[in-house]
Amino acid sequence: MQQTQNYIQANKQRFLDELFELIRIPSVSAAAEYKDNMLRAATFIEQQLQQAGADRTEICFTNHHPIVYAEKIIAPQLPTVLVYGHYDVQPADPIELWDSPPFEPIIKNGKIYARGACDDKGQMYMHIKAFEAMTATKELPCNVKFIIEGEEEIGSESLPYFIQQNAEKLKADVLLISDTNMIANDVPSITVGLRGITYVQVEVSGPNRDLHSGTYGGAVVNPINALCEMIAKLKDTDGRITIPGFYDKVVELSATERASMAEAPFDVATYKADLGVEALAGEKGYSVPELTSIRPTLDVNGIWGGYTGEGSKTVIPAKAYAKISMRLVPNQTSAEIAQQFTEHFKAIAPKGVQVKVDFHHGAEPIVTSVGSIAYKAAEMAMEKTFGKKPIPQRSGGSIPVVQLFNDMLGVNAVLMGFGLDSDAIHSPNENFGLFNYYKGIETIPYFYYYFAELSK
Amino acid sequence: MQQTQNYIQANKQRFLDELFELIRIPSVSAAAEYKDNMLRAATFIEQQLQQAGADRTEICFTNHHPIVYAEKIIAPQLPTVLVYGHYDVQPADPIELWDSPPFEPIIKNGKIYARGACDDKGQMYMHIKAFEAMTATKELPCNVKFIIEGEEEIGSESLPYFIQQNAEKLKADVLLISDTNMIANDVPSITVGLRGITYVQVEVSGPNRDLHSGTYGGAVVNPINALCEMIAKLKDTDGRITIPGFYDKVVELSATERASMAEAPFDVATYKADLGVEALAGEKGYSVPELTSIRPTLDVNGIWGGYTGEGSKTVIPAKAYAKISMRLVPNQTSAEIAQQFTEHFKAIAPKGVQVKVDFHHGAEPIVTSVGSIAYKAAEMAMEKTFGKKPIPQRSGGSIPVVQLFNDMLGVNAVLMGFGLDSDAIHSPNENFGLFNYYKGIETIPYFYYYFAELSK
Repeated sequence: MQQTQNYIQANKQRFLDELFELIRIPSVSAAAEYKDNMLRAATFIEQQLQQAGADRTEICFTNHHPIVYAEKIIAPQLPTVLVYGHYDVQPADPIELWDSPPFEPIIKNGKIYARGACDDKGQMYMHIKAFEAMTATKELPCNVKFIIEGEEEIGSESLPYFIQQNAEKLKADVLLISDTNMIANDVPSITVGLRGITYVQVEVSGPNRDLHSGTYGGAVVNPINALCEMIAKLKDTDGRITIPGFYDKVVELSATERASMAEAPFDVATYKADLGVEALAGEKGYSVPELTSIRPTLDVNGIWGGYTGEGSKTVIPAKAYAKISMRLVPNQTSAEIAQQFTEHFKAIAPKGVQVKVDFHHGAEPIVTSVGSIAYKAAEMAMEKTFGKKPIPQRSGGSIPVVQLFNDMLGVNAVLMGFGLDSDAIHSPNENFGLFNYYKGIETIPYFYYYFAELSK
Repeated sequence: MQQTQNYIQANKQRFLDELFELIRIPSVSAAAEYKDNMLRAATFIEQQLQQAGADRTEICFTNHHPIVYAEKIIAPQLPTVLVYGHYDVQPADPIELWDSPPFEPIIKNGKIYARGACDDKGQMYMHIKAFEAMTATKELPCNVKFIIEGEEEIGSESLPYFIQQNAEKLKADVLLISDTNMIANDVPSITVGLRGITYVQVEVSGPNRDLHSGTYGGAVVNPINALCEMIAKLKDTDGRITIPGFYDKVVELSATERASMAEAPFDVATYKADLGVEALAGEKGYSVPELTSIRPTLDVNGIWGGYTGEGSKTVIPAKAYAKISMRLVPNQTSAEIAQQFTEHFKAIAPKGVQVKVDFHHGAEPIVTSVGSIAYKAAEMAMEKTFGKKPIPQRSGGSIPVVQLFNDMLGVNAVLMGFGLDSDAIHSPNENFGLFNYYKGIETIPYFYYYFAELSK
């Protein structure tokens, strides 16, 4: 892989310029106004895959945002790597909290600042450039397939049907994804577990119209107050979620497993200082790394109702809303948790309001094997470039597609991510280290190399 | 007053057309973008007062929105009526819930539909037209002064300084205001009590940036969840407000007073049906008319935080906000309640968040005398035009200026309003009955007549 590495070093600036070009396309999947940019981004990626050496590329239209497919098949007897990534990004708001425009990438303190810099344009594009380097130098040791979608941030709705329709075409020996974080730049790690998610939107309706709080206040159930009371009831004073049955299927880790987790470096004071908070919270009896990876959660991700403009308005609004998500751990399932939530949330509504719960999207929690050839290949690749054996780590986020590919294609994933928790993905001032971007491009070819070797 | 009444009948259509012209000016005081319309509305009113026969008119600039002053002094020995009203209106949002554009008045089912139709453009304009009718027919029996402000909906901030600077000019024997409701069109009433208000905005801050709920969820205090928990704690299960000291100064009505209140016609089933709710709430042990007039309240008038757009975003926001108002009854004071609220709200904040409370505006609760000459004049005027003696009624809303005029000028108010609770002021589809608009114009001259007679 030496020629590949030389090629990468020789083309570093261009690799960055191209990523910037991709980032400048505001491909926000959640809002209809960005629709045209979704196709622009998909087309850009398709062209890049062609130029990188793909034999065949396709823009596959779906009911929502297009999926980019590409492949390079060298020889049928060689193992096949299926690379998954996504070109859609989170909305940029609250836009006023960005230090620079979200879709105009800049370099500051050795990091790329922009929406999608890390999640997942930066991490996905590393794979295209690693592929280009191996192809250009004729060192590609595996067949490769790419599936780059545009709906990851909104629940990957189109993907199941697409996979079903293209099961034969997508066949592979491993699913390779870079959409996760490492512990630190000097503590490389590989994600071996992901939390699932159940995401709902709730609507609490009271009177049939907005009311004047002077005339009606005191006698009418205020939907905002009701919503707040209901949300408050979702957790007890020990930070445990009160939804009946919520913890029934949660797999508790053994003392040995917890002790092993506790070995990863973690400092509470540094963590609090980084976030600027004086205290943390969460379910009683668990450490911060446990709370953010092996324990389920419930967070309100958005709330609104009544008058939210400048000044004051004395209104009792007809409706109040919230977006609520629960992170799930093995063996919870998103559909069952959605149902438990819905029943409970309706049950705790005070008389005088009506409750509607809409299920937005879900993903299943997963744990991947550390004993597979693919995991070993990733471990060896990272040890090669970082000079340190990576730690297996369970992570708090959700990548819904991992379970999906496993269920539908029988292919297992390796989650070799190069981000950091401090990358502020989904937040203002999202960033991605240049160190991380280039380290990813350098490491990926070794994964191919070791995966081919170990598969022999 | 027969010529006055004849004049009114002869000019009904014009009186309506002029009101429509005023309503079409979107004079929303709360939002800076409407600034120009505030002056347009004030200028329109000044011109109308000139045409109606005022000797002297003025647009008085303030730090914020202008105040319109006008007067007609017939003879120093005659009593002077000071008419107060406001030309500013509530914001129109949520705009999507209006059946017709808020600033394009239309007549439907005998009612004017528009923002400000009742509050207070409709009710205020009745006074200008009654004044015109009395002046045109030379039947005006009192001196008259008008003070029409543009900041009522945002707390009348400029008024105290204006009154202080113009105390001599504003001297009067009674303050006449139409900015309240009657029980029903066939149950005329006069408002003899108003609740006060304390309006605050709260900000709950957690981490120093928006966080990804997968990466951080479970360990970090989510400001939205915290805000909801804090709001939930503001009332107990009996609907009583839990702020220490909140009820200490509340005047409890005697059994006799409560029995007298219970005599006013009220039907819970009709009330619930009108609002489209299956149940009501409120402090245990009080009737709906009591809850909405003689008991203090706490309502969230607005709440926001996190992602509130289309689709989903898995964010733990850095901040969450709410606008909260408390209606006050004698002898609570807005400043003391604001302080009690602030201390309590900070005290119940969970560790890991910071709380900021901004006092937006306040007004003191008032009770007016039913034994005064002014009250008797209003009673006789309404009995004359409605054919029924009006009932004294305590009302739930707040008119901050009533206490202000009393404190600063020593003048007592008569709250002779012609609106109905169903007018949806502060809500989409605000309306004002044509019956009510014309009945107001017809009744006001009799008030002047009886007030002059009783003052002799």
